[in-house]
Amino acid sequence: MNVLDSTSLRIPQPHPPRRGVFISFEGGDGAGKTTQMAMLGQHLVQERHVSEDLVLTTREPGGTELGEQIRQLLLHGEHVNERAEALLYAADRAHHIATVVRPHLARGGLVLSDRYLDSSIAYQGAGRNLDPSQIGALSLWATEGLLPDRTILLDLPPDVLDQRRDAQDQDRLELAGLEFHAAVRSTFLDMARVEPERFRVIDGTQPREAVHAQVLEAVAEVLARFDPTFDPADPPAHRDEQ
Amino acid sequence: MNVLDSTSLRIPQPHPPRRGVFISFEGGDGAGKTTQMAMLGQHLVQERHVSEDLVLTTREPGGTELGEQIRQLLLHGEHVNERAEALLYAADRAHHIATVVRPHLARGGLVLSDRYLDSSIAYQGAGRNLDPSQIGALSLWATEGLLPDRTILLDLPPDVLDQRRDAQDQDRLELAGLEFHAAVRSTFLDMARVEPERFRVIDGTQPREAVHAQVLEAVAEVLARFDPTFDPADPPAHRDEQ
Repeated sequence: MNVLDSTSLRIPQPHPPRRGVFISFEGGDGAGKTTQMAMLGQHLVQERHVSEDLVLTTREPGGTELGEQIRQLLLHGEHVNERAEALLYAADRAHHIATVVRPHLARGGLVLSDRYLDSSIAYQGAGRNLDPSQIGALSLWATEGLLPDRTILLDLPPDVLDQRRDAQDQDRLELAGLEFHAAVRSTFLDMARVEPERFRVIDGTQPREAVHAQVLEAVAEVLARFDPTFDPADPPAHRDEQ
Repeated sequence: MNVLDSTSLRIPQPHPPRRGVFISFEGGDGAGKTTQMAMLGQHLVQERHVSEDLVLTTREPGGTELGEQIRQLLLHGEHVNERAEALLYAADRAHHIATVVRPHLARGGLVLSDRYLDSSIAYQGAGRNLDPSQIGALSLWATEGLLPDRTILLDLPPDVLDQRRDAQDQDRLELAGLEFHAAVRSTFLDMARVEPERFRVIDGTQPREAVHAQVLEAVAEVLARFDPTFDPADPPAHRDEQ
């Protein structure tokens, strides 16, 4: 068989078995993802008494040492061809998921990620010339099919995003302008409509406490599945016998 | 449509139209690729009077500034997840082809590349856990379907490779041992059998002058298509009118 005849990327079943809960936060820069993730993390530890080491806060690109280097290449290096860019983001994701996210999920932890594959689809797919479904296929191949249990989309009109943006944080993605942000936003909203089970859309123009209350509501269902007493060294079946 | 339902990478038709000739050299480290590429380049300039600036000698990974950085990440950095590794090689390739190889082909040049996508398939596919056809699909997506006009496989038994290897050049791929190299060699030979039009296999245990003579024979057909007088600013149709 000619190996070059294949164009199909087989997406394996999620592996290894997951026990934890994976929540991603999506939206434009300035939409409040970092703030809301911190507020959720604090709530879990202080109000729900989840052990601090079970709550992992991470981000893409850049949740690993390799990822930080890729992030530097992408945001501050020479101009990168768009396919190379898509593949670099997918490489960062593959490494981040395999070395950080999956191990934490496997030990029953809770992962809060600032951006995940929907960001790649929205930013690289919507604003540029690549087909969103191709970006999605790359990401799913990279992560062996891992999707979040819940994705919180903090939605903001592009002109509000623009006002909130820190002038010092003008990386390449942010220089692309209002039209680009409008296309990204519209792709995010389309994805949320198509996957209502996974997505919750929250109006990011509200005060942060109001957004936080809606985030808690949006994650209630998946947190109900979370067992903060789970100990991978001491599985539930065994504990039941005691 | 749910963009995450797609697993297929569409490989576009080669774009832009090519006028030059693309020759890749494959084989294990120490098989003589660098030497044979230099001898072929010298032959073209000195014996065939091809203008020096029409002959581009390049390599993967690392034919661009971005590629050099990726190469450093891959060969000397922390352990990289195998899918991340495959995606990084594909990113390097996408950038190298888009910014170096295609522009040179478009102006009618001759490209000699030390390794191309067959190396990815043989090294990442054969020696590790990834399916070779998946690696091929990634590379073809990365390069918008660009294949060499001719691929020279310099074939050497793994034990000869091992003797020739420079002790100072012990990067990660080379540390993998004889068994790995035997698997790589066998994948290279399989690919050559499946694509006899593109591949020419040359016994790399012969003296370098004998190998050189066979390289010249192997590229004769594709060089016959090469027009060293082609000037992209002055296309043939126009010249015919003069």
